Amino acid sequence: MTDLADLPATEAVRRLRDGSLTAAALTEALLDRIAAREPSIRAFAWLDPALARRRAAALDAARAAGRPSGPLHGLALGVKDVLDTADQPSQYGSPIWAGHRPRADSACVALGRRAGAIVLGKTVTTEFATRHPGPTANPANPAHTPGGSSSGSAAGAAAGFFHAGFGTQTAGSIIRPAAFCGAVGFKPSFGTLHRAGMKVMSESLDTIGVITRTVGDAALVMAGLTGGNFGTPEAKAPRAPKLGLCWGPTADQAGPETHAMIERVAAAAAKAGASVEAVTLPPAVIAGLAAHPVVMNGESAEALTWELDHAMALLSPVLRENMAKGRAHGAAGVAAGRAAFAAARAAFAEVIAGYDAILTPSAPGEAPEGLGWTGDPAFNSLWTLLHVPCVTVPVGPGPKGLPLGVQIVGAFGEDAKALAWAEWLRQAAA
Amino acid sequence: MTDLADLPATEAVRRLRDGSLTAAALTEALLDRIAAREPSIRAFAWLDPALARRRAAALDAARAAGRPSGPLHGLALGVKDVLDTADQPSQYGSPIWAGHRPRADSACVALGRRAGAIVLGKTVTTEFATRHPGPTANPANPAHTPGGSSSGSAAGAAAGFFHAGFGTQTAGSIIRPAAFCGAVGFKPSFGTLHRAGMKVMSESLDTIGVITRTVGDAALVMAGLTGGNFGTPEAKAPRAPKLGLCWGPTADQAGPETHAMIERVAAAAAKAGASVEAVTLPPAVIAGLAAHPVVMNGESAEALTWELDHAMALLSPVLRENMAKGRAHGAAGVAAGRAAFAAARAAFAEVIAGYDAILTPSAPGEAPEGLGWTGDPAFNSLWTLLHVPCVTVPVGPGPKGLPLGVQIVGAFGEDAKALAWAEWLRQAAA
Repeated sequence: MTDLADLPATEAVRRLRDGSLTAAALTEALLDRIAAREPSIRAFAWLDPALARRRAAALDAARAAGRPSGPLHGLALGVKDVLDTADQPSQYGSPIWAGHRPRADSACVALGRRAGAIVLGKTVTTEFATRHPGPTANPANPAHTPGGSSSGSAAGAAAGFFHAGFGTQTAGSIIRPAAFCGAVGFKPSFGTLHRAGMKVMSESLDTIGVITRTVGDAALVMAGLTGGNFGTPEAKAPRAPKLGLCWGPTADQAGPETHAMIERVAAAAAKAGASVEAVTLPPAVIAGLAAHPVVMNGESAEALTWELDHAMALLSPVLRENMAKGRAHGAAGVAAGRAAFAAARAAFAEVIAGYDAILTPSAPGEAPEGLGWTGDPAFNSLWTLLHVPCVTVPVGPGPKGLPLGVQIVGAFGEDAKALAWAEWLRQAAA
Repeated sequence: MTDLADLPATEAVRRLRDGSLTAAALTEALLDRIAAREPSIRAFAWLDPALARRRAAALDAARAAGRPSGPLHGLALGVKDVLDTADQPSQYGSPIWAGHRPRADSACVALGRRAGAIVLGKTVTTEFATRHPGPTANPANPAHTPGGSSSGSAAGAAAGFFHAGFGTQTAGSIIRPAAFCGAVGFKPSFGTLHRAGMKVMSESLDTIGVITRTVGDAALVMAGLTGGNFGTPEAKAPRAPKLGLCWGPTADQAGPETHAMIERVAAAAAKAGASVEAVTLPPAVIAGLAAHPVVMNGESAEALTWELDHAMALLSPVLRENMAKGRAHGAAGVAAGRAAFAAARAAFAEVIAGYDAILTPSAPGEAPEGLGWTGDPAFNSLWTLLHVPCVTVPVGPGPKGLPLGVQIVGAFGEDAKALAWAEWLRQAAA
């Protein structure tokens, strides 16, 4: 018999709806899984099993009383700890915010609850979703980083602790950790989930998304949260896609395992009928990437003005250094960077018009060893600033037995298509 | 002898710097003014004179000790109560947030303190910066609304309570109240001031700006906050501008006093050497305006998910109604609205390229009588969604003896030019 903690959300939600599964039983299975594996994975910044059990019981009682249940009825969410929760601490990965208890839920958390989901706990984030890591380990091998900054959501989703973990991405903080942990990561088009109640760093970049075990689960959860159309990625595609294979300006940072993986995936896609064509990015897109650290650090330094002026000693050295760089760029530098972003978006719209999707690495390679560094967002920052939907799907393992992901990038607003082609590619490469 | 409360910030900051004025003396003059007029104006949601006096004394002591003072040393700020302050309640104009004490300052407030400013108090906002009004009255005639949603910042700036009031604009919440109160309102290019620590409603629209008594003060304060270049608007312009006179799609909502005012101001500008040419907006720009309520209410309803689900009874009927409308638009409707905004911005960039600035009404007319309705943002929503810098300068009074403002709109990112031409126009019309 399958462990209930391994049920995909798409299947769990069906059983919860037809009454063959209770929210209480499902929650208990997840808590059992957590009890077994959390000591080595450390995905949670806060976990309150009693709270989760009470919520599950209330959902079961509501269902029994015939009260309508939402599209995510009984499913479990992990919430990255840069997103406020009214009933659990929200500490942003920083001692400056230790014990902070917001009055309200962030918008995305409140939407999850409205849809019937259970907020199982808060997941570990790096410091303010930047570089300084938390204690989380990779579920595939605890000697390796899970990636970051959405470390706990990626590790927890991959380990079967919850059906979806909220992540946020400023450079590579959803796609990279999801790929490292063997999960599915989905960064929707910029602005899809409202950032109210998030500890926003870069207004031009920060994007909320989800990390799940299947592409179908990502679509289910996003649709349940927003009411938008994210398609049914598992449905058989009517044709094979036209893919643009893009190494991009950071090609030289890909490890040998990534070269081998892309070669293998592209060949499998071609064998399954796809056209796969190399894409070169125009100069305006490349120039956007050069502006990424300027805007990211410049805007983040403004966001953290209070912390910098009142609690500098509690910031990590790496964050202090990056915030000093950010301030040095000045208002004019940041404004010029934002203009470069806008030009890059316009130029990329013409590139992507020629393809169904872009095929590109999710990360330089397998997760680095050690927990001190969450890895490089080299293959993510560009797509984040372009505001386009990105999906990573697992196509590993790599030479060290760790997961490898491949990334599908779509046109702005075409999130359902990006998810569908990502699932097509995953199946073709399987 | 001039009342110190009437000193422009540009002059006060000079005297504070050369030592001929202390922050304590200036603060005392402002508190005297407040004591005299606040009972009828009610600009403040929170005022703590002792806190302001301690801060002023600390600034004077620092200066006496030779410690460097910032560009806004000793100036006083009023902070709209949708912006968090660590030392004063932040209640967002809603009983749901009564007594709320944030741990941190919002980014713009922290930037103000870093620059040496004194946060004198929190100013009245309508409910979550939407329609339901607070108790503030118009300083020019307390039987009339000061406008909204930045009601207290506009009334307080006009009455000489502080040198600059922070405002935020989603539809017309900076420009309209500033015009109604006879103040200068400045909505900078979208994204100029980071919204961290603001109770954001519409991510696509909400813009932080300032309300002051002079254009020079607006430039001084914005430069002091951001380190950016906002020019020296009082400097003599090397030539007269090419102005586009634009009534826009809401022309029929202008009252007779506005027609007379625009005619008078345009004639004065022409007499001072400006070219003034009628501008018709292309269909893509008009289509953007049609999408404004869809995006505003749709995004705001998402922002307020927690409030809607946990405290519906404490929301005003008008807000409940608008949030229901917002939810009805759905994710697809809001996404289509955002796409219409993007198209409008691209189309307007071509329009504005032909002019130094657009000349347009700030509001339909004088401030409406009564405090139950803050007036119509008919002449503001379009420029807000276009993300372009807007300045209102007083050119009244109107037939009822109330202030009238005229609005200058510039190209995105050309904030210094917008301020300079606004001051040029004010002088030409004086």
